[in-house]
Amino acid sequence: MIAIVPKGYDPREFRALTFHDAVARFRDGSDTPRAYLERCLETIHEREPVVQAFVVVNEAGGRAAADASTTRWRDGRPLSPIDGLPIGIKDLLETKDMPTQMGCEAYRGNFPKRDNAAVWALRQAGAVILGKTVTAEIGGSHPGPTTNPFDPARTPGGSSSGSAAAVAARMVPAAIGTQVGGSIIRPAAFCGNVALKPTQGGINRGERQATSMSTHGVHAGSIEDMWQVAIEIARRVGGDRGCLGLMGPSTAPAAVKPERLIVLETEGWAELEGADRSAFEALLENVRRAGITLLRRRDHALIEALEGAIANGRALCNTITSWENRWNTRNLVDQHPAGVSARAQATLAKAEAMTPDDYRAALIERATAQLRHAAVGPLADAVITLSCPGAAPLWSGDVPGQPLAPRPTGDFVFNAPSSMLFAPAVTVPLMSVGGLPVGIQVMGQQHEDARMASLARWLLESIPPIVAP
Amino acid sequence: MIAIVPKGYDPREFRALTFHDAVARFRDGSDTPRAYLERCLETIHEREPVVQAFVVVNEAGGRAAADASTTRWRDGRPLSPIDGLPIGIKDLLETKDMPTQMGCEAYRGNFPKRDNAAVWALRQAGAVILGKTVTAEIGGSHPGPTTNPFDPARTPGGSSSGSAAAVAARMVPAAIGTQVGGSIIRPAAFCGNVALKPTQGGINRGERQATSMSTHGVHAGSIEDMWQVAIEIARRVGGDRGCLGLMGPSTAPAAVKPERLIVLETEGWAELEGADRSAFEALLENVRRAGITLLRRRDHALIEALEGAIANGRALCNTITSWENRWNTRNLVDQHPAGVSARAQATLAKAEAMTPDDYRAALIERATAQLRHAAVGPLADAVITLSCPGAAPLWSGDVPGQPLAPRPTGDFVFNAPSSMLFAPAVTVPLMSVGGLPVGIQVMGQQHEDARMASLARWLLESIPPIVAP
Repeated sequence: MIAIVPKGYDPREFRALTFHDAVARFRDGSDTPRAYLERCLETIHEREPVVQAFVVVNEAGGRAAADASTTRWRDGRPLSPIDGLPIGIKDLLETKDMPTQMGCEAYRGNFPKRDNAAVWALRQAGAVILGKTVTAEIGGSHPGPTTNPFDPARTPGGSSSGSAAAVAARMVPAAIGTQVGGSIIRPAAFCGNVALKPTQGGINRGERQATSMSTHGVHAGSIEDMWQVAIEIARRVGGDRGCLGLMGPSTAPAAVKPERLIVLETEGWAELEGADRSAFEALLENVRRAGITLLRRRDHALIEALEGAIANGRALCNTITSWENRWNTRNLVDQHPAGVSARAQATLAKAEAMTPDDYRAALIERATAQLRHAAVGPLADAVITLSCPGAAPLWSGDVPGQPLAPRPTGDFVFNAPSSMLFAPAVTVPLMSVGGLPVGIQVMGQQHEDARMASLARWLLESIPPIVAP
Repeated sequence: MIAIVPKGYDPREFRALTFHDAVARFRDGSDTPRAYLERCLETIHEREPVVQAFVVVNEAGGRAAADASTTRWRDGRPLSPIDGLPIGIKDLLETKDMPTQMGCEAYRGNFPKRDNAAVWALRQAGAVILGKTVTAEIGGSHPGPTTNPFDPARTPGGSSSGSAAAVAARMVPAAIGTQVGGSIIRPAAFCGNVALKPTQGGINRGERQATSMSTHGVHAGSIEDMWQVAIEIARRVGGDRGCLGLMGPSTAPAAVKPERLIVLETEGWAELEGADRSAFEALLENVRRAGITLLRRRDHALIEALEGAIANGRALCNTITSWENRWNTRNLVDQHPAGVSARAQATLAKAEAMTPDDYRAALIERATAQLRHAAVGPLADAVITLSCPGAAPLWSGDVPGQPLAPRPTGDFVFNAPSSMLFAPAVTVPLMSVGGLPVGIQVMGQQHEDARMASLARWLLESIPPIVAP
């Protein structure tokens, strides 16, 4: 088998795999969900040896589901617009027909034979649950084997590594990811996907409700598929306990041009390489030329105050999440001392040095930042910022005997804000730097998920991408 | 063995088992935690054949823990004021040294060998994790074998049946319960315990975070032990993710006399038997004679509005919780069709007839009621109401071929308010009707847990109990 690696990424040329535009042919019989699936499987067979996006691919189960979908479309009775859509599920979510091993040695062979609420909803909508995608260990920073589809020497990002890579490699038109710090938007940005990180609590996490900032979200090749997958889940299972859940139109909202956008620098600004910053400023110039007013920190005291409130976002996210995972991880380490990575054990050690008062202080800092974010709501239609600090970094694995590399799946410095603000974010692939994708994101107020999809769709359709050397 | 059943309950005479007043003797060596434990075990051996409070008693583990505690007290280095306190853990919480079977056939033999965060904290504080107490199935309404310690023909209440009964039978000075509708306060009231149902999120639920109204709480024989157990847990593991957690003094707060109390009728008022209502009015008369002003629905429009907002509390709690448990229960039924009771399956069927919009409507009703509750905060020091609608009802099991009895563990009509309002509630045993305990409760604004403990302590110390025929 010849390993296929595309030569670089150009946002003007790359054509992602889409599903929404295939269903017309399912209706007239010129295509079928089974044939669509076979094309996905063909791509998987071609690319998987290098990309390694999947832990498990359920070919037999997928074919049976696709055949049932084929019948439904032929009979004019699809269960939903995503009936027949092959989808990858991040391996943190339980699936009744595949193991759930969470990228963690301690969970090797774990097979609870249950469906996560979101997976249940996807099956109800007729989607083809094709496989489990690689996650960094327990959704943290210790990476799995997945490589970036545009350069196998680089990370696809994490922790939704396999979901991002599977979509970017055109293996599936959509995949489910989860984010607690930057685990949806960052890998999507490194891989040239569109992706939705919903308002906190937007999509029912089922059994995975132990942390306060985690969300399920969707990676896709198009805004249309991204929205459709998200809303089909939310229509059936709603959001997390106590949350209103994702709301919005039953098909992807139309593109809407924003009038004003707030450019948020975040704590990532100071760390940007010159080329990445220049590329982003060039993109902003294209936005400005389209007649959109851009506001920055120097333009309004409330924006400056928000920048200040998120200036410690990475550390804050890490503090909150490590505390919330503390007892789960402690139990895991106690039960499987050799089954948990040194990275996860280091995180646990930090959490075990914390007190409840440390956690309270972090919650108050987060709540304050959320008020600061609410306060800028009336100033503009949304926030715009980078989705990642430049292209995916090189990653060839830890070196025995050397200290562990920090952030092997990349930096989530541009993603901490939407996580800690509980805000919906949509990333779109509007840039490339050095032949690799770099995403930009729009972020809205809580429950503005549909509006963010509209704005992102407009940007994608209307703003000339930036291709930087 | 001769089954021992006390002849009725009189709140003026009953002496509950206490721990806080034993530790002075641990210091001077005239008593030891091991000897204390042996007295508990003796009581368990005497009463357990009828009461059936425990699923598992870990005698060997308990003795080892008590011996270690004995050494620490002797050395003047106890880990906390509850070092050596034998405690029962509701069998919904995971314990690393005992199975966690949740009163559910489908979980028979389930032994995850992990500690729930609260259990971990109790061990850190030196408490003796003595056994797992019977829970109604998965915390619902299908009862276990436990009987009321004051009348074996009656329910101890549920779902924290075993925790309530173990404390009432003087088997242990404290036990952990959980409440999502009325599962702490109701059984405590039926069994003559004091108990704390904290502000929502007050005590870290660890792995059990799937529902929005569930809390861990404490059953005890005294306010002192109740508070000490709760605060020792919260000092070590804090509250639920995203919550500030229980806060307050490091030992039980002193008794404080309230100036004004709001008497809340709730939807339970219309259903009260005459004798129960008369007994409660007699108790209120004692409160009034102590110089406390009582406010009722006719006294203030905001109180009437709160009564209106909680008038549908039972149904609202059931709607919210059944939806939140829907996918967990569906998975359980799919995996173990014969392992889930008809009661739980009926609840599942109701949940499966709901839509996300039904759930949203219930959340909005709950949030509205919480605002109504906040609005009465300035009117009085707390709310006072019954903890249960009269004494524990008779229960002798389901009759084959007959429809399932409704509410076999009693009615939670007086408990739905504190659950849906996320409000702290403390029940105290200040009444008996027909020789059986009936509790009354004080309920405060969110985060007023310590104040409620103060008021409850004052009531218990200062208000003459009512003994009604």
